[in-house]
Amino acid sequence: MLTKEHIADQFRQLQDNICKQLEIADGGGVFVEDLWERPEGGGGRSRVLQGAVIEKGGVNFSAVHGELPEAVAKGMGLGPTDFFATGVSIVLHPHSPMAPIIHMNVRYFEAGGGKWWFGGGIDLTPHYVVPDDARYFHQALKKTCDVFHPDFYPTFKQQADDYFFIRHRNETRGIGGIFYDYLDESKHGLSREQLFEYSLAVGNTFAPVYSELLRRAANRTWTEKEKHWQMLRRGRYVEFNLVWDRGTKFGLETNGRTESILMSMPPHAEWAYNHQSLPDSPEAQTLALLVKGVEWV
Amino acid sequence: MLTKEHIADQFRQLQDNICKQLEIADGGGVFVEDLWERPEGGGGRSRVLQGAVIEKGGVNFSAVHGELPEAVAKGMGLGPTDFFATGVSIVLHPHSPMAPIIHMNVRYFEAGGGKWWFGGGIDLTPHYVVPDDARYFHQALKKTCDVFHPDFYPTFKQQADDYFFIRHRNETRGIGGIFYDYLDESKHGLSREQLFEYSLAVGNTFAPVYSELLRRAANRTWTEKEKHWQMLRRGRYVEFNLVWDRGTKFGLETNGRTESILMSMPPHAEWAYNHQSLPDSPEAQTLALLVKGVEWV
Repeated sequence: MLTKEHIADQFRQLQDNICKQLEIADGGGVFVEDLWERPEGGGGRSRVLQGAVIEKGGVNFSAVHGELPEAVAKGMGLGPTDFFATGVSIVLHPHSPMAPIIHMNVRYFEAGGGKWWFGGGIDLTPHYVVPDDARYFHQALKKTCDVFHPDFYPTFKQQADDYFFIRHRNETRGIGGIFYDYLDESKHGLSREQLFEYSLAVGNTFAPVYSELLRRAANRTWTEKEKHWQMLRRGRYVEFNLVWDRGTKFGLETNGRTESILMSMPPHAEWAYNHQSLPDSPEAQTLALLVKGVEWV
Repeated sequence: MLTKEHIADQFRQLQDNICKQLEIADGGGVFVEDLWERPEGGGGRSRVLQGAVIEKGGVNFSAVHGELPEAVAKGMGLGPTDFFATGVSIVLHPHSPMAPIIHMNVRYFEAGGGKWWFGGGIDLTPHYVVPDDARYFHQALKKTCDVFHPDFYPTFKQQADDYFFIRHRNETRGIGGIFYDYLDESKHGLSREQLFEYSLAVGNTFAPVYSELLRRAANRTWTEKEKHWQMLRRGRYVEFNLVWDRGTKFGLETNGRTESILMSMPPHAEWAYNHQSLPDSPEAQTLALLVKGVEWV
């Protein structure tokens, strides 16, 4: 019997494993930990790294429970109920504009009446899209997905395109990845145990893939021009997270731990009025790829 | 008879006057103008300055009309209706961390069935609160308000405290000011003509007051430490505008002109995980004043 305590334990271990691998990939930084408690039940373990390669990285674990706030329950189509939620959530901002921002999340949710589901995904936000890297990234996600169900990659890839979309800019946040939510036995016929294994597999795909992307970016040089572009792209990241991201909105509106929720914010960001890229510039080439429906595999 | 065309004309002139005064106060920068049209009706005149004293400033005029989007109408307690809206909206970010960010807005709204109202206000966000400046600022607003109604300043001052509040940080955006909305004849017995005069008076209070605040800040020196604090405070400004500000949300969710709506974004901003100010430091003293209900007059 797969208990929620076991799921939380495994997610906590996942956080440990990922932090170890990221410290190796960074080659300098060490995670600093904050334990926090939620007055209404549960708590979390926030870890932040300011490293040599990763400028600002947050790797969050939490397991919370209690009464589900009414507005949230309504949004999920549920009546008054207790809930349990546990997950690992990550955003990493590298120093180099030639390396990508990355986001990963896996989570498990239980409500009253035996309802449960998994959610999560990984998506990549390169400041400059490098097609080889984008293919490598999507191929790795597909490989993990294909072990579990042939529909997972195409379905969750499209969901990522739709979700990580900055509506008011009419551009995607990055090159997408996979995104799934409300995943239970009814969707693709996998058992709760199998879906948990899948979520762990997604979590375990994260660190090796990002380490490889950092290795590839390590020798790429840049100037002030690329650094400035990175700051503008980080501004867009802020816009997505504060205006559209459901997780961030949910957290801020339900009185979550603000410092943990906003670990996703970049260390610096910039805004320029009506910034235009030169035609055929690397910046314009990147913008041209920030659209839904690009098939990288 | 006060027509909506006349109101729009006067607001356009207000924009002209303010821009002239701000160019003088800046002593170097010149506004660059963009005209834009709204496909559904109307348009605007956006002006942006990157100056010697004002690092990034936006002064927007717009007059738009058409069918009121259903979701917006609902939020206003209205059925399907045409609307007309015109206003001037300003956010200025100074170079110096010792000078304050300022925001001003005056607007007029008409809906079907003879409904109309005015809204607006001015509020100040010092990176470091200087009590003398805060008193001067509030005193100037009170003086303008008192010409029209003795209740205006205390009522609109409290509304500013309530509105410019960053809930997830439990702190006000700055030291407040005045904020009013849905202001029509029913509230304080003033006629439409008088309320329009009041809105123009608020608009005309803006430039001289901010010019004086810039003069006061001109000789204040700063180091990297104050500059870093300014960047963190700008991060909070971004959080308020993208998470809580009704005008920004309304604009982004109803497909407004994104570059004009987000003129309010600072040129640079920073986020630091769990930043703590030293006890009794100028930063801690400022934070202690970012609460509701401080009486500056």
